Amino acid sequence: MVALLDRTRLSFIVDHPLVAKQWSDAMVMRGKQVDVLVKVDVGFHRCGIDPDAREAMPMIKTVASLPGLRLRGLLSHAGQAYHAHSEDQLRTMAEAEARTMRDLAERCRKNGVPIDEVSAGATPPARFSLLQDGFTEFRPGNYVYVDRTQVALGAATVDDCALTVLATVVSKPAANRIILDSGSKTLTNDGARGFTPAPGYGTVIGHDDLVIERLSEEHATVKAVNRSTSLEPGDRVQIIPNHACVVSNLVDQVWLVDGATAGPLAVAARGRIT
Amino acid sequence: MVALLDRTRLSFIVDHPLVAKQWSDAMVMRGKQVDVLVKVDVGFHRCGIDPDAREAMPMIKTVASLPGLRLRGLLSHAGQAYHAHSEDQLRTMAEAEARTMRDLAERCRKNGVPIDEVSAGATPPARFSLLQDGFTEFRPGNYVYVDRTQVALGAATVDDCALTVLATVVSKPAANRIILDSGSKTLTNDGARGFTPAPGYGTVIGHDDLVIERLSEEHATVKAVNRSTSLEPGDRVQIIPNHACVVSNLVDQVWLVDGATAGPLAVAARGRIT
Repeated sequence: MVALLDRTRLSFIVDHPLVAKQWSDAMVMRGKQVDVLVKVDVGFHRCGIDPDAREAMPMIKTVASLPGLRLRGLLSHAGQAYHAHSEDQLRTMAEAEARTMRDLAERCRKNGVPIDEVSAGATPPARFSLLQDGFTEFRPGNYVYVDRTQVALGAATVDDCALTVLATVVSKPAANRIILDSGSKTLTNDGARGFTPAPGYGTVIGHDDLVIERLSEEHATVKAVNRSTSLEPGDRVQIIPNHACVVSNLVDQVWLVDGATAGPLAVAARGRIT
Repeated sequence: MVALLDRTRLSFIVDHPLVAKQWSDAMVMRGKQVDVLVKVDVGFHRCGIDPDAREAMPMIKTVASLPGLRLRGLLSHAGQAYHAHSEDQLRTMAEAEARTMRDLAERCRKNGVPIDEVSAGATPPARFSLLQDGFTEFRPGNYVYVDRTQVALGAATVDDCALTVLATVVSKPAANRIILDSGSKTLTNDGARGFTPAPGYGTVIGHDDLVIERLSEEHATVKAVNRSTSLEPGDRVQIIPNHACVVSNLVDQVWLVDGATAGPLAVAARGRIT
């Protein structure tokens, strides 16, 4: 991190006083200072400080006072939006998140802590978050590709989906069943628990009658609801996955296609989780 | 495949006459012959010929007669055993699979088609399959590591589990909630739909009170059922994953640990799906 600081603009989040203190100590030891944002829990209950807790303001003040840190602002991720069931719910979530973040930023300023950035990031409610006052940054990460889950949440259309998996029919054990060479090691088991209105593990483009019923590691078992399909072994299909982010993390490269032109692009961050 | 044939013993499965014919043609063109086994559907309804279908024997005879192929035998995968709910069900499945395969092999021999190999492979019923007559080969793939799912199926104990994920506590937003740096890009979303009797996405060794409630891509949200946990940011824990196979496929290397000795081992096949 210290080496990176010399090469690029860098900031990260903190949500725990002990961790913030250790980062500060490490930076001071190297004669550095790093930008941080305090993560705020706006309802997903993953990371983040509870904005209503008594400890919220003391924690933010502590971060602001640590010599190795430069407090840039506040940051949220409304991940609960992935469980929304309607446009109205998404809008309400976006409004509530904005209100929480605005109020906390205001309290910080009243307490003498300047807040320059107020950052929101979650793809499903992004179109409503953009209409709210008080944010200075948006980070809708899935937006790069979008996927079948975003389509189900009304945040994208099928035509917006930029990432597809190219699969080959490797068997046809029955007239209404084909096997594709794209299993859970390609499509992942993400998002098939009532997440999307259509069942299954992906959309087979141009074959509305096909349901990807089950994934093994290297096989997709696909049922033709019309009792038969014209697809035969060797045929290729394109699949829109349920969750583009985890699919990207399974391959060393993707192929960029622009009209008739196609070329490989390395997925440099694949597997660089820890 | 042709190049590999010169370097090693190689065999693969066929379950479709068209694909078998194409393999045979490809081998004949290079002056080669390759060992194949016919895949038989013993109840999982993924790949494999239906042993009771009228087309079963003609298909096997076709494969036996193709000049580029050398029919070695029959092969099955009783994947339905992953949905068994008791020892009795596992035993019944293993017995039914063995009966189906023995009967089909016998019919082949009566039809003048020699069958040398009868191969079974699925880890959950393996201990019962080993007691059956008629098999010449077993391929329980998950057996290499076993995992939390095998423990739930009675096919292994927690002490048998050889693969663990080393995770770090990165936040503690509440006394009863910690965040680990192992999300779905590390543990995968496999096997958390009532598969295992214990809920969640893995077992945190030595912390029976912790439930891995939810995975984001880079976060595990972990709840302490006893209302608080002594774990703090920076602490490390070992997790037994629900499904070792897909977890292995996410990392470039594993660390082999033998007592005090540890060293890296490359996962050479990672990502080599297609």
